[in-house]
Amino acid sequence: MEWVDGSVRMIDQTKLPDKLTYVVVKDHYKMARAIKEMIVRGAPAIGVAAAMGLALAAKGSHAKTKEQLIARLHEAANILRKSRPTAWNLFWAIDRIIREADKATGSPTAIIHQVVDEARKMAEEEVQASHRIGDFGTTVLADGDGVLTHCNAGTLATVSYGTALAPIRTAISQGKRLQVFATETRPRLQGAKLTTFELLSDKIPVTLIVDGAAGYVMRQGMVNKVIVGADRITRRFVANKVGTYMLALAARANNIPFYVAAPTSTFHLEGDQSDVKIEERGADEVIRIGGKRIAPREVRVFNPAFDVTPVELVRGFITEKGVLSPEMLRADAVL
Amino acid sequence: MEWVDGSVRMIDQTKLPDKLTYVVVKDHYKMARAIKEMIVRGAPAIGVAAAMGLALAAKGSHAKTKEQLIARLHEAANILRKSRPTAWNLFWAIDRIIREADKATGSPTAIIHQVVDEARKMAEEEVQASHRIGDFGTTVLADGDGVLTHCNAGTLATVSYGTALAPIRTAISQGKRLQVFATETRPRLQGAKLTTFELLSDKIPVTLIVDGAAGYVMRQGMVNKVIVGADRITRRFVANKVGTYMLALAARANNIPFYVAAPTSTFHLEGDQSDVKIEERGADEVIRIGGKRIAPREVRVFNPAFDVTPVELVRGFITEKGVLSPEMLRADAVL
Repeated sequence: MEWVDGSVRMIDQTKLPDKLTYVVVKDHYKMARAIKEMIVRGAPAIGVAAAMGLALAAKGSHAKTKEQLIARLHEAANILRKSRPTAWNLFWAIDRIIREADKATGSPTAIIHQVVDEARKMAEEEVQASHRIGDFGTTVLADGDGVLTHCNAGTLATVSYGTALAPIRTAISQGKRLQVFATETRPRLQGAKLTTFELLSDKIPVTLIVDGAAGYVMRQGMVNKVIVGADRITRRFVANKVGTYMLALAARANNIPFYVAAPTSTFHLEGDQSDVKIEERGADEVIRIGGKRIAPREVRVFNPAFDVTPVELVRGFITEKGVLSPEMLRADAVL
Repeated sequence: MEWVDGSVRMIDQTKLPDKLTYVVVKDHYKMARAIKEMIVRGAPAIGVAAAMGLALAAKGSHAKTKEQLIARLHEAANILRKSRPTAWNLFWAIDRIIREADKATGSPTAIIHQVVDEARKMAEEEVQASHRIGDFGTTVLADGDGVLTHCNAGTLATVSYGTALAPIRTAISQGKRLQVFATETRPRLQGAKLTTFELLSDKIPVTLIVDGAAGYVMRQGMVNKVIVGADRITRRFVANKVGTYMLALAARANNIPFYVAAPTSTFHLEGDQSDVKIEERGADEVIRIGGKRIAPREVRVFNPAFDVTPVELVRGFITEKGVLSPEMLRADAVL
């Protein structure tokens, strides 16, 4: 995701792995739609996309006063906030941009510049955070490890380098030999489509399994670490792609450390489960694959996009500030 | 599955739910292929199919002596035993037919008749067992329960009525209102394609979820019972469709009773995990859905068809002889 000449250029993730195509987003309406339609997805990427959406709104505002500009930003923020409900990064990023704009002084044009700069700075910060997550995360990985990951928490879910994939990339760059297992991640198959694509592009071998096979590969000793990303982390719960909770339970049952890798922009320590809105998506994601219907037309479908894992099941949170235990989260860890 | 005029007529399950078509199998080679290609599937159905395969071999043998007939049956048994490795019912059924033929007296024609009668009797016995499983199993279901099942353990997996679906059918016929949840069951989607088809055909409402969502529906209190079938049960382990183990762990974590419904033909109490061969199937089942490739061509795939659940995670085994605890299995329960 890049800011290019007053537009945002990003990969259309819905077309991968078949086609690597880019879309150019020019206003916050299109950005909200890109988030909703999952052209851009992954919590840190969604956060930066929202910030850039506000930058586009600022640029396109033709505001004559600061008040007009702030009003325009609030309007755009309301639209962007409704794009998807679960990833905390979205709300965090919007609040940060609005706060910066509120604080800013100077002409409307100067403030618009500051808003654009802030959005671009957030993108750079997320890249740095990913590399720091890699640095901290590699310490939990040993030569010869089998590492399982879920959904896509790589470059495509961030700005670059990834969250759950960052420790894997760093460990491999240090010469550690890892066996990487990716769950396909139904219904949208981000593991099969995106994680495999990313890792194979970087010449990192990866083995694809169906979601239900994760417990078996753990029991068979093929995997001895699990690392996933997160959409929202509170003091007691991790909201992440549906299926994460069962992976955490299987890891616990097999004495396998289960790690959550996420930048601090994903943490909402003031929040609790009641705040965590778990998005329910349409039936078609489940009953149609590649345009083909796989179930009887009249079947009822329940399709939560995320689930909730108690922090007690997490061995460590790998952040850009270090690896935190669940106890540190519940105490007053400052993030 | 029916014996009709010296042939076996059965639904082609690979065509469901789009087309309800039947195939007519006339010899044991075609029967072995039908099992291998999953035209017929589900442990009890595979057992009866193998028995009928031997009946076809006997009928087609033109044996002039009992010795010739027995040799022919052993030959056919070897081919059928190689069709699929995990379901115990296959091996159990073949051994029973061979034993009956060994014991039989009279002309070759008379013995062939006995073999055919035995195979047909086994089909009837499985139907009766399914109904008894329904009778015993309904006692664990209460009005208002949310019941989750995995894969297809219904009419299509048996001769009629099912194993895991039998208690559900019986409970509903007694007026209990159940919310039935079916996991789609990747990679072959037997839950999405077969269980929904069967239940909707019988006007039993069912909600489809992806496999990874099972933990979430349990945590949310939408489900308070889990019933699955089995491919092989030893004193310590249950081999069943991949994903079963994680369902059992999620049930345990949420204090939800987890039941395994199976006829005694699935139990191999002399066996242990070392005997349980977990079939690994091809990559295409995972990376192609309805002919469409969903992952990069060059990705490695690990595709175990089954997994192994320790009996400690099972609240009860619902059989045609009653509901057994895991402790009863480990003691010398006579099945």
